[in-house]
Amino acid sequence: MARTGRRPGQQDTREVILAAARQAFADKGFDGASIRYIAAGAGVDPALVHHYFGTKDKLFLAAMRAPIDPAKLIPQIAAGGIDGVGERLVRTFLTVWDSPAGVAVVALVRSAVQHDLAARLLREFVTTQILRRATAHLGLDPAEAPMRTALVASQMIGLGMMRYIIKLEPLASAPPEAIVGSLGPVIQRYLTEPIKLP
Amino acid sequence: MARTGRRPGQQDTREVILAAARQAFADKGFDGASIRYIAAGAGVDPALVHHYFGTKDKLFLAAMRAPIDPAKLIPQIAAGGIDGVGERLVRTFLTVWDSPAGVAVVALVRSAVQHDLAARLLREFVTTQILRRATAHLGLDPAEAPMRTALVASQMIGLGMMRYIIKLEPLASAPPEAIVGSLGPVIQRYLTEPIKLP
Repeated sequence: MARTGRRPGQQDTREVILAAARQAFADKGFDGASIRYIAAGAGVDPALVHHYFGTKDKLFLAAMRAPIDPAKLIPQIAAGGIDGVGERLVRTFLTVWDSPAGVAVVALVRSAVQHDLAARLLREFVTTQILRRATAHLGLDPAEAPMRTALVASQMIGLGMMRYIIKLEPLASAPPEAIVGSLGPVIQRYLTEPIKLP
Repeated sequence: MARTGRRPGQQDTREVILAAARQAFADKGFDGASIRYIAAGAGVDPALVHHYFGTKDKLFLAAMRAPIDPAKLIPQIAAGGIDGVGERLVRTFLTVWDSPAGVAVVALVRSAVQHDLAARLLREFVTTQILRRATAHLGLDPAEAPMRTALVASQMIGLGMMRYIIKLEPLASAPPEAIVGSLGPVIQRYLTEPIKLP
């Protein structure tokens, strides 16, 4: 295809950086992929990555096309303390999923199921951006936190699958509060009651 | 493309029937799609469908390429009665998923996430072949059974997603009994304790 002679624009550069970031986060994990490494992969100066995206957290959000920012949502969910956190978490998830942003969340899950790179990215995102923050904000025991938060994640992604993708009734059309009433105590249990560690 | 002049063989006819069955089950549901209707869609005699596949249940199993037969597994899980059924259910799922048949289950889930027809088929399969049988064998209250079994299905597909597709640790490599110990009481709760109906 014929290309014009103009130099790549800002939009192209952003996309090149985002592609390098996705590859780096999937290959080396969020902690292992430095801004310097990502910049090298994109063939740009690290300062340009900072200029466009700010922090590494923000770059990860942009690379995932994440429709929500866990750094804002999780403190809200945790704010009331550990009591009732299960219900607040389920209610917040349903609010996001039932909103226009929900389409983007479903797209993330679809992509993760189809492509190994996307699955690795989603795993890194869930672990470092959601579960790690939830552990800190809720003050979970570090020895138990990975299993507790993974159990929560399994129930929440299963709800998303059945309600929005497989569309199994009555979950698909149940009012949010019916789901909050049924899942809230289970999420609470995963976070606070004795669990069996692997 | 050039085709040889030979008539379609038995294998071709089976595949034509299976394709017609998939379309019919997705379009009209399991209960609405008769063997006669499927045979018409495949352009064959209904007797031939019975001859190749036996019952409509068996045809559905073949159409789904289901690696397990819920008609055999569910009575085993339910056999000990309602006490401890949560742990038995989780243990049985893990035994199937961790076996060579697990690859086929993961393929079913992947396909359902990508294609609407496959999602409708999986929903019909889960509803009529798994949840309906579980309801009968466990003697659940018919008014509550759809919500109870949908909650169970949401937790189990979420476990499958996290353990086998997203591969979130520690769920991905946890020994089965650690997962049975954590999820069993939740499945038991969904099946037997008071729930909020939609």
